[in-house]
Amino acid sequence: MNAPAAIRLHINDDVVIARNQLISGTLIAQESVTVQGLIPAGHKMATRNIAEGEAVRRYGQIIGFASRPIMAGQHVHVHNLSIGDFNRDYAYGKESVDTVPATEAAFFQGIVRGDGRVATRNYIGILTSVNCSATVARAIADHFRRDIHPEALAAYPNVDGVVALTHGVGCAIDPQGEGLAVLQRTLGGYACHANFASVLIIGLGCETNQISDLLATQGLKENVRLHTFTIQDTGGTVKTIQHGIDRIQEMLPAANAVQRQTVSASHLVVGLQCGGSDGYSGISANPVLGAAVDLLVRQGGTAILSETPEIYGAEHLLTRRAVTPAVGEKLVQRIRWWEDHCKRNGASMDNNPSSGNKAGGLTTVLEKSLGGIAKGGSTNLVEVYEYAQPVRAQGLVFMDTPGYDPISATGQVAGGANLICFTTGRGSAYGCAPTPSLKLATNTALWQRQADDMDINCGDVLDGSATIAELGQRFFQMMLETASGRQSRSELHGYGQNEFVPWQLSVIT
Amino acid sequence: MNAPAAIRLHINDDVVIARNQLISGTLIAQESVTVQGLIPAGHKMATRNIAEGEAVRRYGQIIGFASRPIMAGQHVHVHNLSIGDFNRDYAYGKESVDTVPATEAAFFQGIVRGDGRVATRNYIGILTSVNCSATVARAIADHFRRDIHPEALAAYPNVDGVVALTHGVGCAIDPQGEGLAVLQRTLGGYACHANFASVLIIGLGCETNQISDLLATQGLKENVRLHTFTIQDTGGTVKTIQHGIDRIQEMLPAANAVQRQTVSASHLVVGLQCGGSDGYSGISANPVLGAAVDLLVRQGGTAILSETPEIYGAEHLLTRRAVTPAVGEKLVQRIRWWEDHCKRNGASMDNNPSSGNKAGGLTTVLEKSLGGIAKGGSTNLVEVYEYAQPVRAQGLVFMDTPGYDPISATGQVAGGANLICFTTGRGSAYGCAPTPSLKLATNTALWQRQADDMDINCGDVLDGSATIAELGQRFFQMMLETASGRQSRSELHGYGQNEFVPWQLSVIT
Ligand SMILES: [Ca+2]
Ligand SMILES: [Ca+2]
Ligand SMILES: [Ca+2]
Ligand SMILES: [Ca+2]
Ligand SMILES: [Ca+2]
Repeated sequence: MNAPAAIRLHINDDVVIARNQLISGTLIAQESVTVQGLIPAGHKMATRNIAEGEAVRRYGQIIGFASRPIMAGQHVHVHNLSIGDFNRDYAYGKESVDTVPATEAAFFQGIVRGDGRVATRNYIGILTSVNCSATVARAIADHFRRDIHPEALAAYPNVDGVVALTHGVGCAIDPQGEGLAVLQRTLGGYACHANFASVLIIGLGCETNQISDLLATQGLKENVRLHTFTIQDTGGTVKTIQHGIDRIQEMLPAANAVQRQTVSASHLVVGLQCGGSDGYSGISANPVLGAAVDLLVRQGGTAILSETPEIYGAEHLLTRRAVTPAVGEKLVQRIRWWEDHCKRNGASMDNNPSSGNKAGGLTTVLEKSLGGIAKGGSTNLVEVYEYAQPVRAQGLVFMDTPGYDPISATGQVAGGANLICFTTGRGSAYGCAPTPSLKLATNTALWQRQADDMDINCGDVLDGSATIAELGQRFFQMMLETASGRQSRSELHGYGQNEFVPWQLSVIT
Repeated sequence: MNAPAAIRLHINDDVVIARNQLISGTLIAQESVTVQGLIPAGHKMATRNIAEGEAVRRYGQIIGFASRPIMAGQHVHVHNLSIGDFNRDYAYGKESVDTVPATEAAFFQGIVRGDGRVATRNYIGILTSVNCSATVARAIADHFRRDIHPEALAAYPNVDGVVALTHGVGCAIDPQGEGLAVLQRTLGGYACHANFASVLIIGLGCETNQISDLLATQGLKENVRLHTFTIQDTGGTVKTIQHGIDRIQEMLPAANAVQRQTVSASHLVVGLQCGGSDGYSGISANPVLGAAVDLLVRQGGTAILSETPEIYGAEHLLTRRAVTPAVGEKLVQRIRWWEDHCKRNGASMDNNPSSGNKAGGLTTVLEKSLGGIAKGGSTNLVEVYEYAQPVRAQGLVFMDTPGYDPISATGQVAGGANLICFTTGRGSAYGCAPTPSLKLATNTALWQRQADDMDINCGDVLDGSATIAELGQRFFQMMLETASGRQSRSELHGYGQNEFVPWQLSVIT
């Protein structure tokens, strides 16, 4: 197969991306356009004549407006493209369009819980209120590790494992503060995650983050699936470990009594992540993931876009796709929170394209941020959540999180994500529990170098062996298979216990 | 033995503490004083006549000044004691006194490293630059866990273990910010800790906290005792785990080739901690630890007092004991930093005694903070360090840390602490690696309830079966024995890998 010389990212785009440097006079066959002048690799070529002032689209989204007339085949960059006043107009909902439902329904093999929610995995979880009970929690989980004690879960083949999700915080913080509220919300979200058949919450006893308050604020009650206890009440380390092992032994038969059944793809709640991005992220893996998300949303499923600092300066792109002004305004409120948060602490969030970005072919802040937003596909923004809030809407939603991968994904899983999809160019090794996490490589070199950790190679888009639409369809199938129980690479390697990192917003005193 | 009715905390004190409620007319034999009026349990009784304006001492330190004349045997509390202008006068060095060297030298069995530093344990450490390499680090450490793979270290009895100290941060932070500098200092301190025979540092590859910068800023170089590598360079999870195991296999023979030898107690560097304090902390365990620290300092050893927010408002107590004005000023600078840090983030650090504190017998902020400061004994403050800075002075020093136990102790160990001494009333389960940690129970009920986790019962002071001086002497011996290799309770239970919590000061974007 002859690799096409340029990559089309979306059917509505006015530009394509040069795979290698394009020389004047070259015919770009699939676009029926002849190159005018020189276009560096990774840069944009116009595919039609564009009048001055007209919007220019990449990823099907506006990246700016022609600052002078542009002819088909010409290089599109800072000399003829600018964002004008776009970034001062949130234009709430102006570009929302009705989602066309899929003509053919998609399914996966899920585990339907008593309350109707659908799980993609079946773990027993051990949570901690504070760092002080982390070692006890890990010791209990170790007792059930299949690689250490294969006999412990031998009679429970339907249980994917027992995982301890520990953390470094929980005390010496303001009991009335936002930081504790966020931690409680995160723990509460995990405590009732559908992928947990049952849960232990273990405390020390005297911590600020009291388990009784945690349960009360999150509307949780102890029951046969949720046991809580503290080291101080139980009488120290050894008794607490034994108590936890005993509780889990009691929970195992019920946890094992599950059967996968065919359920609609609408039960998927997918957290979108990128980490270790490279110049290809916005050309291959992110658009591929976006194409799969569009398919999912057409099935009634849910995808969670996040990483607020990485869309900063381009939030207009999302407010325009908001289904209501209220949804758009929620997003803008979170942007204002971040501006304040950074200002107070002398941090910066400026996302303007750097000179390196520009050399690589990115012209505007919109285009740069769109590289990340492309993971979310092209459907409407139906809801905006704060960190770790329960995600109940169906469609494309936004959850406010930092860009930092483990903290961002932890918020999404707390919100109910039952699948994580993670694009990487440099080579992330991220994995998650209790939610499986798939990794999309942006380029073939990474795919070959770090095959252990990658689930799909989006480098095929770059070498021309597949289109974004084709790979998006293939990856959507992989999402369904993974949700049905097929292990992702990171699950094979036992990732997840160390990647639970709640967002720490408190001053620790 | 007949328990004395009142507890003397220090030989220079003007007050003693009522063990139980004292009734007028009772003779307190050991003080040759008769009680005048009613003195509630835990409250103070004057042991001599005190003139108006005279300083009143507890723990050998000023807790305030008589606001009216006080007679021997009378209750000392808010009605006749206040701090006056004391808290506006740092009086640098005004109360420093020459330390009297011990007449009899004390020793322990230590491991002398090539550079002359003395270790109390002999571990191989695995550090990570970022959360992304945490699972790989833990997998490598698991390969050498004696409880899982007893064969792995069978030939290396002098190696205490292989521990992975992982964390949740390292990326999406300001590369020029204070937060990264603090993280690098912490990792640097561990990387060259005497208790590590050798160290691996493992990264992902694309993180903000680059290993090359970490080494450069900390003056470290790769050598036969310090190997670094990344998952991206090594080619993914499986190869990186194998590479780490291979490196450690190579390091083990040299790590095992150590012998303990008799060294001076002056080589002890003791981090002082309290957590889960109760009403007895300031009466039993903290003064006992302080008595032991005084013995240590007289031997030329070092003790690190920390937990800045818990001395807030009473920093005058330490500035007065500073050996030079410069040392006192460093402490005050850190206090100002905390005021600013809290103000910027809407947090509070007010340490005034609450009404509950007052009901329990604490009169002034000085007295409340002294309850914690008492851990440091009564010698001069010879130096002040920022978090995780290398501690090089000998004597009583201060390191600025939060009060939160794991973060505070992590800073002390980064600074070189080769023993942690931790007082607790509610029942902490803290443990540390590579530094052993001893726990002092403040009361006998805790000692009995949570015997697993406690190393010494300071409740003996409360029930009168030992004086503070006696228990201080006994605990000093325990410090020497522990430094010589006797395992603390928390080491027996495998604590340490989950309690490494670097102070996170960065905004995470
Ligand atoms: Ca952790
Ligand atoms: Ca319970
Ligand atoms: Ca990210
Ligand atoms: Ca190396
Ligand atoms: Ca503390």
